[in-house]
Formats: sequence, structure tokens, C-alpha cells
Amino acid sequence: MIGIIMGSISDLKVMQEAVDVCNEFGVPYEIDIVSAHRTPLKMIEYAQSARERGIDVIIAGAGGAAHLPGMVASVTTLPVIGVPVKSSNSIDGWDSVLSILQMPGGVPVATVALNGAKNAGILAIQILGVANKEIADKLQDYKISLETKVAEMSQQAREGLPPA
Amino acid sequence: MIGIIMGSISDLKVMQEAVDVCNEFGVPYEIDIVSAHRTPLKMIEYAQSARERGIDVIIAGAGGAAHLPGMVASVTTLPVIGVPVKSSNSIDGWDSVLSILQMPGGVPVATVALNGAKNAGILAIQILGVANKEIADKLQDYKISLETKVAEMSQQAREGLPPA
Amino acid sequence: MIGIIMGSISDLKVMQEAVDVCNEFGVPYEIDIVSAHRTPLKMIEYAQSARERGIDVIIAGAGGAAHLPGMVASVTTLPVIGVPVKSSNSIDGWDSVLSILQMPGGVPVATVALNGAKNAGILAIQILGVANKEIADKLQDYKISLETKVAEMSQQAREGLPPA
Amino acid sequence: MIGIIMGSISDLKVMQEAVDVCNEFGVPYEIDIVSAHRTPLKMIEYAQSARERGIDVIIAGAGGAAHLPGMVASVTTLPVIGVPVKSSNSIDGWDSVLSILQMPGGVPVATVALNGAKNAGILAIQILGVANKEIADKLQDYKISLETKVAEMSQQAREGLPPA
Amino acid sequence: MIGIIMGSISDLKVMQEAVDVCNEFGVPYEIDIVSAHRTPLKMIEYAQSARERGIDVIIAGAGGAAHLPGMVASVTTLPVIGVPVKSSNSIDGWDSVLSILQMPGGVPVATVALNGAKNAGILAIQILGVANKEIADKLQDYKISLETKVAEMSQQAREGLPPA
Amino acid sequence: MIGIIMGSISDLKVMQEAVDVCNEFGVPYEIDIVSAHRTPLKMIEYAQSARERGIDVIIAGAGGAAHLPGMVASVTTLPVIGVPVKSSNSIDGWDSVLSILQMPGGVPVATVALNGAKNAGILAIQILGVANKEIADKLQDYKISLETKVAEMSQQAREGLPPA
Amino acid sequence: MIGIIMGSISDLKVMQEAVDVCNEFGVPYEIDIVSAHRTPLKMIEYAQSARERGIDVIIAGAGGAAHLPGMVASVTTLPVIGVPVKSSNSIDGWDSVLSILQMPGGVPVATVALNGAKNAGILAIQILGVANKEIADKLQDYKISLETKVAEMSQQAREGLPPA
Amino acid sequence: MIGIIMGSISDLKVMQEAVDVCNEFGVPYEIDIVSAHRTPLKMIEYAQSARERGIDVIIAGAGGAAHLPGMVASVTTLPVIGVPVKSSNSIDGWDSVLSILQMPGGVPVATVALNGAKNAGILAIQILGVANKEIADKLQDYKISLETKVAEMSQQAREGLPPA
Repeated sequence: MIGIIMGSISDLKVMQEAVDVCNEFGVPYEIDIVSAHRTPLKMIEYAQSARERGIDVIIAGAGGAAHLPGMVASVTTLPVIGVPVKSSNSIDGWDSVLSILQMPGGVPVATVALNGAKNAGILAIQILGVANKEIADKLQDYKISLETKVAEMSQQAREGLPPA
Repeated sequence: MIGIIMGSISDLKVMQEAVDVCNEFGVPYEIDIVSAHRTPLKMIEYAQSARERGIDVIIAGAGGAAHLPGMVASVTTLPVIGVPVKSSNSIDGWDSVLSILQMPGGVPVATVALNGAKNAGILAIQILGVANKEIADKLQDYKISLETKVAEMSQQAREGLPPA
Repeated sequence: MIGIIMGSISDLKVMQEAVDVCNEFGVPYEIDIVSAHRTPLKMIEYAQSARERGIDVIIAGAGGAAHLPGMVASVTTLPVIGVPVKSSNSIDGWDSVLSILQMPGGVPVATVALNGAKNAGILAIQILGVANKEIADKLQDYKISLETKVAEMSQQAREGLPPA
Repeated sequence: MIGIIMGSISDLKVMQEAVDVCNEFGVPYEIDIVSAHRTPLKMIEYAQSARERGIDVIIAGAGGAAHLPGMVASVTTLPVIGVPVKSSNSIDGWDSVLSILQMPGGVPVATVALNGAKNAGILAIQILGVANKEIADKLQDYKISLETKVAEMSQQAREGLPPA
Repeated sequence: MIGIIMGSISDLKVMQEAVDVCNEFGVPYEIDIVSAHRTPLKMIEYAQSARERGIDVIIAGAGGAAHLPGMVASVTTLPVIGVPVKSSNSIDGWDSVLSILQMPGGVPVATVALNGAKNAGILAIQILGVANKEIADKLQDYKISLETKVAEMSQQAREGLPPA
Repeated sequence: MIGIIMGSISDLKVMQEAVDVCNEFGVPYEIDIVSAHRTPLKMIEYAQSARERGIDVIIAGAGGAAHLPGMVASVTTLPVIGVPVKSSNSIDGWDSVLSILQMPGGVPVATVALNGAKNAGILAIQILGVANKEIADKLQDYKISLETKVAEMSQQAREGLPPA
Repeated sequence: MIGIIMGSISDLKVMQEAVDVCNEFGVPYEIDIVSAHRTPLKMIEYAQSARERGIDVIIAGAGGAAHLPGMVASVTTLPVIGVPVKSSNSIDGWDSVLSILQMPGGVPVATVALNGAKNAGILAIQILGVANKEIADKLQDYKISLETKVAEMSQQAREGLPPA
Repeated sequence: MIGIIMGSISDLKVMQEAVDVCNEFGVPYEIDIVSAHRTPLKMIEYAQSARERGIDVIIAGAGGAAHLPGMVASVTTLPVIGVPVKSSNSIDGWDSVLSILQMPGGVPVATVALNGAKNAGILAIQILGVANKEIADKLQDYKISLETKVAEMSQQAREGLPPA
């Protein structure tokens, strides 16, 4: 199961893409609001109990001084994927990117792009797919679907423009 | 009493300046190594018990994805001063500055300059000086000492250079 | 009493949050427009007389080459909280952040996040709460109210989404 | 098995830490030099055959316009961990960080800190530990060893400094 | 012939300017959607066959972690012009600029300004003009047309404003 | 006389503020469109003849890779004031700021803030005021008018808000 | 007379180049240490009396949160040239550059390059040269000397390298 | 023939790599010191006469506010390759990168990486190779030599490390 958490419900408009990926791949998930700064004890508890509650990978999204992914990673031994969210008073997103990415040696966070919740979802699926052939096959199908979309765009671009 | 904490003993070469300020002003302090990412539970405990153990202000120094000051501030109601430390694999210090400064509404960290442990010490003293006339007087004397140093440098500059 | 100043009345849309915090905590405050660059003498006078006029903490907001917080701190021995305001021709807010944060050794400014006037207010309250049990208790209640809000959002997130 | 690749043998001084982690945890690995820009076909082939050759996770380090991790991720469905290496003519490491982190939707790279090969190694181990109890237990032991080191530093800091 | 490629059809609103330049100078071109991350094999094939298919210069536009120009350049010996596109979740365009510009020694990409597809077109024409007198003459005419536009603006500025 | 030039008539919406200052202080000026990149020879000629045509100070505004101020300064011995203009495809204004500011030793450009045409105007007036008592007096009056505006805002802020 | 001030005698290693330019052009100058943050009242006094003491242009160098140039400009009507000094704990010089450059409308500082004290000197001379033919002629000679140096380097480059 | 120019002989330690590439490919070149800011007229003349003097491509290196490549491109219709040089007082190289890269529509500069003179050389050769089969073949050989070097490094990496 994939655990998806974020610091505020306002992050959900970004984090929804991770949820959508789980639904698309048919992988169970659990969603919660866990704030490093407003609910530090809930956060610790969440991270401590995650593995035994059946969570395999944690996706944590946060903005600004984004401590949630790194702090969760400090408690659990599960892989934690961090999604830097560009919040309203962010300094162009640099704050959340660097707060999540630059973890010290010993406590990694798998960081994805700014607002990259979709990729967080796919990365979580890939992690499950390491030991799960069925999921790996779905990922292969997904790759083919990406190719197909480009093929369609390619045709559109060639037709929609005057010939050289 | 001022509580001075940092994520690693290697931060002490920067944080020593905060200690020196405490000694200079004759204000008691307590020093400890508390790592947000390696000792999250100790950190929580430190922050929870700080006020009752007689700590008035906490100075927390950290580098990289610097979560210590903000996480301590999430637990305690004491003022927390954050010192962004420029660590070895830092991206020019931007990571620690932004990780400490950009706290969300509700949980402030009083951030000082990169490697600005001296100013963290003075700020802590100023906070104590709000309600303590003796400390306030010492701060006034300190301001005069800063002026005196500039006066000396001024004379040196005028003498050491050829007259216009 | 908390002194709240800013360089221009246009900063008030950001700084109002500091005022709101004072009102919420029932702490007296004084508000004024003081510009480092347009009223340097008024600024000096403001800072020189602040402590004797009963001000305990100064909150100063400014944008661009934001000199107000640092210059006030150069004159008074009170703690000065600086709020970097993202003004219209700002270079993404970096100018106000760095102009306020990077003070030289000896003259600290307690810097909060870009447009972080709310946190400036709370930090000022925390400073008053060091020696005031009643305020400290209110801060503890405030922390609990933050937790409660997250609990509500948590329920909303779990209900509003399809079960895993 | 963990596949560790990098664009040049000069990256090995950074990437060695990932190798060390594998040795420390007793996890088999394979190391190779694969350059996105000098050996694009070898890179494609490497990524295409990785899963069937028994690789579970790929760690790819690169500097400057660092295309290796993202390109490998474009071909394989395995999780790819990217290590931004700060190379000699790098613009402060921003180039490698952004080239690796900012992948488009559909093709994630699990990015770690600048020069963060150690964390790349641990993240790879965590991914293996999702479905492997023995490895998960070793990760728990590793967490305890981090705590122990801080406890030692804590004692050192308290003893090595004059009492308050 | 000039080959114009981009990672997604959404880049066409930026890249159209390169097409317009080709039309303006009467130089044949070919347009296609080629994605480094979604169609890596098509990309390799495109680059491998470009010269023999009669392409002289390749213009490649991409955003975010923009690998297309550099990867195409890794396969072909033709000059490749890279256009950094400012995509929606871009970190202010820095990601695409640095991903394209900072190529390692041996594999250059001729990078133009952020969203600078017009200049990519002109640069391609200039490259063709090295050995083609007719094109060189058209470029000279184009330079004169730029001057003429400024002369018109100059007159407009002088007339539209009150005399000094 | 003050010479005001800019690279394109689209810069006039920013540069108009410099014109307004000249009008306000009653100082004669001359306005023209001079593009470093589209009319290099006109630019050279403009700069070569400026002093003899009675120009005392040149204000040059430009965006992106903003070469106009520096190139004019390379030809004339008059003081040149550079206004970095934030143009449409600018990378947040950094490009124009750095292109104008970072001139090599020997050829200064007096750089003002991003879009700071008003200050360019005032700086030009100040330069004329060095040897002109009447202008200096007007500048003194201007300073007083700035103070007056703040006094008005101060009253507004105090009245518009509930008393502490 | 040119007034050269700086916040600390440690800035003199950078600011000496401004002094050298004054000596080279035979223009009188006055040098002093004036710190915005340590001697705010001396700074105000310096700026208030500058014009009447015969100073025509002020060159002010400062690092970090560099308030000296802007604050001096807030008091005097003389042109103020600001030199951003890259100090030891600077964030790559961005702090001093932005603190000096981004002045609000009404109070300009003529900013030169990071550590650009030489250009500050030349700019001051150019300002004096507006109304002084003799100085203007010397500036013309100086320009020729720059050309001559390049001519020498040109010859050296051609000779020192193997012919094509 | 390739024209290689730079603003100062101190840039030669970087630009030598472009010279080396010309020698390696046996392509004639001409080298000169041409400074945009110290020898603007020589620069104009250089660019005006380049094509008729038999130059096919211009490589121009410059640091800081690097105007040389863009200004040369404003005069000539030849392709101009710009090399951002990281000079001593550079702000981390950002100034030269942005001054060269961000050219306005109509006047492109083919920008390569910071200090990327080697790639400037190869890009110039690629441009010559568009219409020259022999050069194109050499470029193909060069690509193979890059592959061979990686193969050697690959072997070294595999042997030099303990087996997994």
C-alpha cells in the first residue's frame, strides 16, 4: 500500500495526481493530512507505524520550508518520496525543492520535480514493481502509452503545419 | 538559560560564536548535539521539556536541508533562533537558509545570516533583555563598543593612507 | 507593547497579519509608517525612543533593498523582527530577503519568511511569553488549535476521496 | 542487484559512497561507466537489458547537463536514483540538480542531494527492503547506529566546552 | 533542410517562431514531435538518420529537464541548436536553460535564449549561409530591416513625446 | 541635457518615469530609440557625439542581454546610467541586471534597480546638481516631499486601524 | 572632492582601487570608515554634512546586508556610488549586490559591479568631468590607454600562438 | 577559417581549448584580442570585415557583463559562438552566461557551457562540416574516439573495484 501525505489540504490540488496514478495502476493507497510543523507528534507516530500498518512506500508533499518528507524519512526505514509543492509565498519553489532534496548522509528522500506528484506516484509504482511482475508489466504498458501519445502529436504537428 | 543545539559536532566551529556571546554577557547556557534526522525522538523530547528545564530561548544551527530549528519550533512555544550553517555539500548555503527561513504561518523561526551564530547569540541576549534591565544595559554597552571599534578603524584608515 | 512599522502604507496588506496576531492574543501594539530611505531621521528617532516608550519588540516590514529592519536594529537594543515584503519590482523577493537576513555580526535581525508577517506576530508574542506565563499558556493553546485544524483537514481528505 | 553507473570515471570519487553502502549492507551491485552523451547506444542497451540481467534498482550519477539518470529512466521501468555530481565547470551544482530533478510527468527520477551518493545507496537498499525483511532489519540497525553516533557527539560537546 | 523537433506539441506555441523564420527565408524544413523521455528510440533513430535524410541543422526545443537537444547532439555530427522552453512547472526557466547549455566537453549544443525559437531559426539560417551566398545576402537584408524598424520606432518616440 | 535612450519603444512604458522626472525638475532632455543589437553603428555614433551635442548624462534602458548601457559607456566619457528592464522572456530580470551591472574594470555603468527608471532620472539630476546650486536645492525640496508623503501615510495608518 | 567610505577596514583591500583611481586622476578625496550598523549616527552626520564639507560625490562600499550606500543616499542629495563587496559569509555576493541595487523609487544608488571599486572611482571622475573639461580630457586619454593595452595583448596573443 | 576572439589575454587559458580543437581537426583559424568595452571600434571593424576576410564562424569568449559575442553578432551575418568565461569577480558565472545567452529576437548567439571553449571549437567544426564531407567524417571519427575513451574507463572501473 502507498501512503500519501501532505502538510495541508490545500496541497491536494497538486497531490491529487499521485492519487490518480494509484487508481490508474489499481494499487491501494491511504491518504492523510500530516503536518510536520502543526502536528509533529502525529507525524512521528505516522512514520513509526507505517511499515507495520502495511505501507510500502510513502509519498509526502510539502511547500516552503518543507520538512515533512525528510522528517518522516528520519523515523521510518521505508522509502520516502518527496514532492516539493510550490506554495503561495514560496520563493519560486526553490525553498521546497532545497528543503526536501538536500538531506544529509544517512537519511535519503527520493525527490521528484516541483509539483511533480504524478511522477511521485509512478516512482512509487516502480518501487512496488521491483518485486512484482504484474506491476512491472503494467509499467511497460504505460511506457508504450506514452509513446503512442507522442506518435499522435507527431502526426498532428505534421498535418497542422504547411509543408516545407 | 539559553539552549544551544546543532545537528552535528562539526557545526560547532560555526556555533561556537553563539557560545562566546553567552560567555561574554555572562548568561548561562546549555549545549547539546540534537539531530532532526538522526535523533528525531531526542529532538522532540528536547523541545517538549525545554521550557520546564528553564530554557528561555533556543538557538539551533543546521546545514543543508536544515530541519532542526523549524521542527524544534513546531514543538515548543519558546522563541527559536535558527542559524543556517554552510555545510560541505551545501548549494552555496541557499539550502540551509531557505529550509530555516521559509516556515509556514503559525510556526516562526527567527532566522539569522548564513553562519551568523554570533548574531544568534546577541539576539537571544536581546530577547532576555526585554524584561531584564541589567542585560539591556550590557547590550547598550556592547553597542558603544561597536562604535569604538569603528572609531579606531576610522583613525587607522585615515592615517594609513596618503593624504588627499 | 509591540511596535509594528513598515516602509510604506502599501506594505500594510502584508503586515496586517502581524496586527491580527496581536489582536488575537490581546497584546497591545502601535503601528506606524517609518521609511528608512524617505524618513531616515524619523527612523533613528523611532528606534532611539522605542524602549523608553514601552515597546518590547519591534516588527519591521520592508521590500526591495529593505534597510528598515537592519537600521532600526542598529540603533535599539530591543529585538527587531524583519519581514521581507515582496514588492512590485522585486527580483522574486530575493532582494528583501537578503537585505534583511544577511546582517553583519553584532546587529541581528530576527528574519521571518517572505511576506511572513503572521509569523512575525507570533514570534513577537513568543518573545513576550518568555517571561510571561499567561502569554505562554495562550501560545500553548494556539499550538493545539493548529493541531485541531489539521485533524479537521485530515478527516476532510479521507472522506472526500474514494477509499483505497 | 543494484546497478551503479556514472558518466565518467572522474565521478567515481563521489559515487564510491554508493558502492560503500552496498558493501556495508552486503547487497550485490554492478558498476559501469555509461555516458549519455558519449555512449548513447550503450546507455540505451544498458537500460533495456537491466531488469532481465537481474538489476532491481539503478543508481546513476552525472554532472553538468546531467542527462544520464533521466535517459535511463526513459527506457527502463526500474526505479532510477539520480545523483547530481558537482563537476568542475558546474554552475554551483545547479545544472546537475535541475537536469536530474525536473523530469516531465511520466518518467520519474528519484533525485538525492548534490553529491549525495551515500543517500542514493541507502535509498536503493530501502527499495530492496520494501519486500525483504532481512534488509529492513538491517536498515533499522543502521538508524540506531546513527543515533549512537549523535549520542557520542553529544557527550563530546558537553565535555569539551566550559560549563555554563 | 532544417529539422525542427520538440518534446511535445504544447511546445509548438514557442517553436512556431522558428518555423516562421524558415518560411520567411524560404528555407525548407521538416517538423516533428520527438520526446527524449517518451520516445527515446525514435529520438536515437531521428538523430542517426538526420544527415542522410538531408537535414543540415537541427533545432530542438524542450522544457524542464530538457534532454532532447543534448541527446540528439550525442548521436549526430550535425550542429544542434537548443531552445530552452519555459514550461508550466519550470523553476523560472532555469531548469531548461541549464539542462541544454551545460553540455560536457565533446558534445556541444548551440543554446539560444529562453523561448528564443526565433533566434534558433535565424542561427540555423546563418549556418546555412556560411557556404551559401544567396542566403548570406538575405541575412544582410534582414539586418537592414531590423535597422529600419528601429528608425521607425525612433521617429515615433521623438514625436510622441513633448519636446525637451 | 539628459540623453534618454532605450533599445525598443516597448521599453518606454518603463522608461517614461525617467522622462517624468526630467519634466518635474525642469531639466531638458532628449529621447531616442537606439538598439545595441539592431543599430550598432547608430549606437556608436550616438555615444561618440553625445558630449559635443550638449548631453551631460546618458540614461540607457535595456532588457535581456542588455548591452546598450555598457556599450555606450565604452565609447563616451560621460556618466552612463543603466536601467535593467524586465522584458517578456527575461529570466526574472536577472539577465538585464547582470548584463548591465557586471561591467569590467575601466568602463563603469551606474546601475539602478530593475525597472528603476525613476531613480535613473533622479540620479541624473543629482549628477547635474553637483555643480548646480539651483538643482541641488530642488533635490532638497524633493527629499522633503518624500518625507511629507510618509507623514501622510503614517497618519492614515494610525487612523485606519483600531487603537492598541 | 570625492568621499570614500566603507563599513569596515577589511573592505579596504577592495576599496583601495577607488583610492588609486583618484590618485591616478589627481582628484582630491577623503577616506573614512562609516558603518551603517555600528555607527548609524556618525553615518547620518557624515551624509548630512557631506555637501557643505565640499564633497561632490560619495563612494560607499559595503558587504552582506549592505545598507551604507542606500542610507547615505537617503540623507544627502549628492550622487552616491555603491560598491557591493563580497564579504566572507556572503551568499556569493548576491546579498550585497541586491541590498545596494534595489533601492526604492526616490532614492537612487549608482551601483557598480561586485567588488567594482575601480569603476566606482572612474564613475566618480566621470561625474566630476561633466562640468570640468580638464577631467573630461583625462578620461579621454584614459580610454585611449585602455585601447593601447588591448593592442599590446593582441600582438602578444598573435605571436604567442602557433600560426594557423 | 574560424575566427577566435576574446576580451582579454587572461581569457586565453580558457579559450585555448577552442584553438586546440582547430589544430586537432586541421582547420585554419585566426586569433585576436578584441574587447567590446575597451576597443569598441576595433570590434565593429572586426565584425564588419570578418566574412570578406574569409572567416566562416566566429568564436567569442568573454566574462562578466560579456557583450563581445552579442555585439559581434549584431554586426556580422556569420554564426557567432559565445563562450561565457568565469572571470575573477564574476557572480558564479551567471553574469557571463546570461549576458551572452539572452540575446533579443533577431540577433542570435550560439551559446555553449560556462568555460566551454572546447565545445565552441567542436560546434564551429560541425558548422563547417554541414557542407564539407571530409570534416563530417572527421567528426564521426571523433565521436567514435569518445566512445572508446568511455570503454576504457568502463574497464578500469570494473577492474579497479572489488567484485560484488
